[in-house]
Amino acid sequence: MLLVDETVAAIQPVDEPARALADEHQLRLTKPAGSLGELETIAGRLAAIAGEFPPPIPEPAALAVFCGDHGVHAQGVSPWPQEVTTQMVRNVLAGGAMTSVIARQVGAEVAVIDVGVAADLPPELARRGLLRRKVAAGTADMTAGSAMTPEQCRQAIDVGIDVARDLVAQGNRLLATGDLGIGNTTASAALVAVFAQAPARVVTGRGTGIDDATLAHKVRVVEQAIAVNDAHAQDPLGALAALGGFEHAALVGFLLGAAALRTPVVLDGIVAGSAALVAAALSPDACGYWFAGHVSAEPASRLATADLGLHPLLDLGMRLGEGSGATLAIPIIQAAVRIVHEGATFESAGVAGRDE
Amino acid sequence: MLLVDETVAAIQPVDEPARALADEHQLRLTKPAGSLGELETIAGRLAAIAGEFPPPIPEPAALAVFCGDHGVHAQGVSPWPQEVTTQMVRNVLAGGAMTSVIARQVGAEVAVIDVGVAADLPPELARRGLLRRKVAAGTADMTAGSAMTPEQCRQAIDVGIDVARDLVAQGNRLLATGDLGIGNTTASAALVAVFAQAPARVVTGRGTGIDDATLAHKVRVVEQAIAVNDAHAQDPLGALAALGGFEHAALVGFLLGAAALRTPVVLDGIVAGSAALVAAALSPDACGYWFAGHVSAEPASRLATADLGLHPLLDLGMRLGEGSGATLAIPIIQAAVRIVHEGATFESAGVAGRDE
Repeated sequence: MLLVDETVAAIQPVDEPARALADEHQLRLTKPAGSLGELETIAGRLAAIAGEFPPPIPEPAALAVFCGDHGVHAQGVSPWPQEVTTQMVRNVLAGGAMTSVIARQVGAEVAVIDVGVAADLPPELARRGLLRRKVAAGTADMTAGSAMTPEQCRQAIDVGIDVARDLVAQGNRLLATGDLGIGNTTASAALVAVFAQAPARVVTGRGTGIDDATLAHKVRVVEQAIAVNDAHAQDPLGALAALGGFEHAALVGFLLGAAALRTPVVLDGIVAGSAALVAAALSPDACGYWFAGHVSAEPASRLATADLGLHPLLDLGMRLGEGSGATLAIPIIQAAVRIVHEGATFESAGVAGRDE
Repeated sequence: MLLVDETVAAIQPVDEPARALADEHQLRLTKPAGSLGELETIAGRLAAIAGEFPPPIPEPAALAVFCGDHGVHAQGVSPWPQEVTTQMVRNVLAGGAMTSVIARQVGAEVAVIDVGVAADLPPELARRGLLRRKVAAGTADMTAGSAMTPEQCRQAIDVGIDVARDLVAQGNRLLATGDLGIGNTTASAALVAVFAQAPARVVTGRGTGIDDATLAHKVRVVEQAIAVNDAHAQDPLGALAALGGFEHAALVGFLLGAAALRTPVVLDGIVAGSAALVAAALSPDACGYWFAGHVSAEPASRLATADLGLHPLLDLGMRLGEGSGATLAIPIIQAAVRIVHEGATFESAGVAGRDE
């Protein structure tokens, strides 16, 4: 049995009785009913994910940054040279990337995984924490055929499953998704177009910053890639191989692997959102384990989170990727659960209820 | 010279050259220009507040919870008995209140100040951290005349100024506002109606949770209080004394005091928002030192933040007060500044710029 099939088979629906216990407990806490808004929903979801009330406080947290390059970069969809992927891998490892700084602020560990960077990353980077799981040196150009072979796609998914398992085995109780890959918003737009059934012009955005002419070109590239590959949502793994990057495939595995281990995952922006649409097509139950850390400024981001039925926790106009938005949302989720652990009840605190 | 006048006189406009330095630095950081969205704005604002670049990382942070009771409670505007204010003071001091838990999650100190609780709080609570600065045992009923005398109002403002000074003197570099007081959304609605020039029916909300009939009654109470006192925004201190609670007046002082000390303050929901409208009327420059931690579910909250020109950082449907929303936003502000301290530049990290 393939690891991905085994993982999908292991995913259970979240536990509704545990959620109900959490919701009941909210009424006993010293606050007006419902007054914590989304924090109450989060606590209920964490209970449903853990299958128990109270759920464990989701600490420590770890961010996994999956890195890959994209053949479609040759089509001129990004103003950044492809070497920037490698340079940013080094930057994250050195702790200077924006997402590294945010992770320090919120106390999250950062794992960096080379699943498909075009350049050969030197072995000594492993000593700085790089996980060397390269499937291939970048994908093929999706406008000329499938970006990945089915075998490559499966391998990348397995990497993601392994990383989720390892991070959970190391004691992490909350995972966040990150990604690095020049060109990866193009692949993400193509996946969202297919899985959320939206036109390319609606889901394609400016990524790291492109002008109107490049945006129009990027839309045509997305349309062409979908047409050339005859990608459709009824064949999730086929569409993923055709249009995704190695980091997308790894994220699909990561999201499924975490769900199989009943571990909550915070999604970053559109790269994670597009991977989540694929993962949800493989396992609708897996959605119950995911949170939308934020809605990014990329147009497909709001579409993807809506399609997944997730309510973004932050809306700060961020569009950086790297896991920056997901990581920034971690304290909100931790606070929501800490409240059901440490918050006083009307009974325990001797606080009077409302007059009825 | 009165302390409030002295404080207002000490408030300087935020420093635009420092903001410009921060904005320039954003372009050197290893990320696409503008891709951190609101985090870039925050970092610029912190530089402008500090008057230097980089501004200090705003740690440690402290939450000040100002507590008072309201004569208007007698009008039946809340389903909660007035004793709950006292019980919640004890709950916050014991660390069991929701806001106490959130403060622990984000590493913020909590100061609790009795500025006008109706009940006599026992002296031993001082040993648990209560600051005993009671001006009077609750305000008078604003539907029958002024809630505070001018002298009481001034005293409560002074308490807020003192608390801001003390917390800054203790080394805190970021302050957050909190409040406790059964009935205080009624006073807040009245203040917002006057200072944002909006009808009572628009700004009056369900507070801790009231039914339609009570809401309609609450709207009439707000209208009556404004009419009886002939409150208008051209006389900010008069309107504050007429309609505010002791915690509102203390918050006005706290906001002005922090601004005078060039210290950023995160506003919680509608109680802080209404106090900020009063403080801004006394010192428009003070607005530059404040952040809207969140927009609460109370209708006046969005109106107040818009009137103040502030962009709420969180929108999680919270309506608890106590400082819960402000406190939850603290890590976002800290991360925004940490990024300009610790984030690598294109030059330092050897990352290529975009092709132009």
